[in-house]
Amino acid sequence: MFIDDVRRAMAETGSSVCVGLDPHLDLLPSEMARTADAVGNFLDRVIGETAEHACAYKPNSAFYEALGEAGWGLLQRTIARVHREGRPVILDAKRGDIASTAAAYAAAAFDVLGADAITVVPYMGEDAVRPFLQAGGFVFVLALPSNPSARPITDHGQPPLFARIAEMAVQLDESHPGCVGLVVGATRPEEVRRMDEVSVALPWLVPGIGAQGGDAAAFFASARQERIRLINASRSILFADDARAAARQLKTDIKEAGHV
Amino acid sequence: MFIDDVRRAMAETGSSVCVGLDPHLDLLPSEMARTADAVGNFLDRVIGETAEHACAYKPNSAFYEALGEAGWGLLQRTIARVHREGRPVILDAKRGDIASTAAAYAAAAFDVLGADAITVVPYMGEDAVRPFLQAGGFVFVLALPSNPSARPITDHGQPPLFARIAEMAVQLDESHPGCVGLVVGATRPEEVRRMDEVSVALPWLVPGIGAQGGDAAAFFASARQERIRLINASRSILFADDARAAARQLKTDIKEAGHV
Repeated sequence: MFIDDVRRAMAETGSSVCVGLDPHLDLLPSEMARTADAVGNFLDRVIGETAEHACAYKPNSAFYEALGEAGWGLLQRTIARVHREGRPVILDAKRGDIASTAAAYAAAAFDVLGADAITVVPYMGEDAVRPFLQAGGFVFVLALPSNPSARPITDHGQPPLFARIAEMAVQLDESHPGCVGLVVGATRPEEVRRMDEVSVALPWLVPGIGAQGGDAAAFFASARQERIRLINASRSILFADDARAAARQLKTDIKEAGHV
Repeated sequence: MFIDDVRRAMAETGSSVCVGLDPHLDLLPSEMARTADAVGNFLDRVIGETAEHACAYKPNSAFYEALGEAGWGLLQRTIARVHREGRPVILDAKRGDIASTAAAYAAAAFDVLGADAITVVPYMGEDAVRPFLQAGGFVFVLALPSNPSARPITDHGQPPLFARIAEMAVQLDESHPGCVGLVVGATRPEEVRRMDEVSVALPWLVPGIGAQGGDAAAFFASARQERIRLINASRSILFADDARAAARQLKTDIKEAGHV
């Protein structure tokens, strides 16, 4: 199970760093060829260098899809490479459909590509999540994104929508224990405190520390409950001159901020 | 531009039918091989048979993705086939991410695949929509889904979230005129009336008539404003014994219900 693999990797590495794999063509080293094979070699190298400091990897489907048919094969290759390091894979796909469509997305993510978990956008409610659980995968429900333009939506109503989403995720976890988590951005300490109360023991996937301006110390000060929190960093590791050193540094920063 | 192509096709066919292409392997004729090529031949035939009664086509990305790498090529083939009939293509992908990730999804949809429009889930706000507009495509923002489990989310707060989403879409259309529409399910007449008021002149993409239990007459009675409304039917046409007759029948039903 995904969450057991995460626990094992956290114990092995002493790290809660999740390395985001966003092969953005404009950001790859300029001397590199823009072929799927060259991008694959680049990603394989980064995965090999960072595995000792990372407990999970999160390939971002969009950047693979932008490479067309070859990108699909590249995504399979990336996932297989991560698994060879004994690390679980979260496919960052933010899928948001229901019923047989969601089941087809689940088949693509878990059966065809081999991912262990997926990110899902819950606008269509429980039906947008359940088919992924029924397919045997782990789902991170997008609850509190880190971008400011999400606020008019996530904060709408009283209680704010994001709290309702968290409650929905908690309920789904009751029928599929250990298979549901939340995406909780690190840029909003006050709302993070609220999420901490309503999301019980659900694991979090946390974007926004570093590149997006989130402050690790402020985040951990507001998120006080014991829970698995996967701290994702994408570009700051992937495109670092020394990916291994960047992953190790983030691991250290998180520890110093009082987590893991 | 997508919306001009839709107007032209509506004038040519006298139809507001959008044919949904969901190549669900379990529903394809049992004697058919489950290869991408056989599925492609099946879809090509349905597109050829229905084009005289359809003003747009909506391939559902999930069912292509479930076919793996070959599915990606099949999706390109489907879109090119629709274009040969002079009809525009809405990629039903319900993508829901922001910034450079959304830009990569836009590149995949519009540049790599050749779609003219895409469906987007707006949980992350304007940032989840804008990159698709900046890439020159048309966006149908998911506002009022037809599934009951969406209600605790879409109806959350006062005004209900779906009205806020429609207002957001109207604002986005002001900066990209003629490039934004809404997905409005046909199963909720009262809420459809509300959407009719807040969505000004935005085009609608309407799922839920037929297979999902939506009643065409009730829908058109509640949606009274003049606007382009693309009435989508997927399985009831795609898997009909006679796809041409099924598309013609829906066109007639819509006319009798008082639209186009």
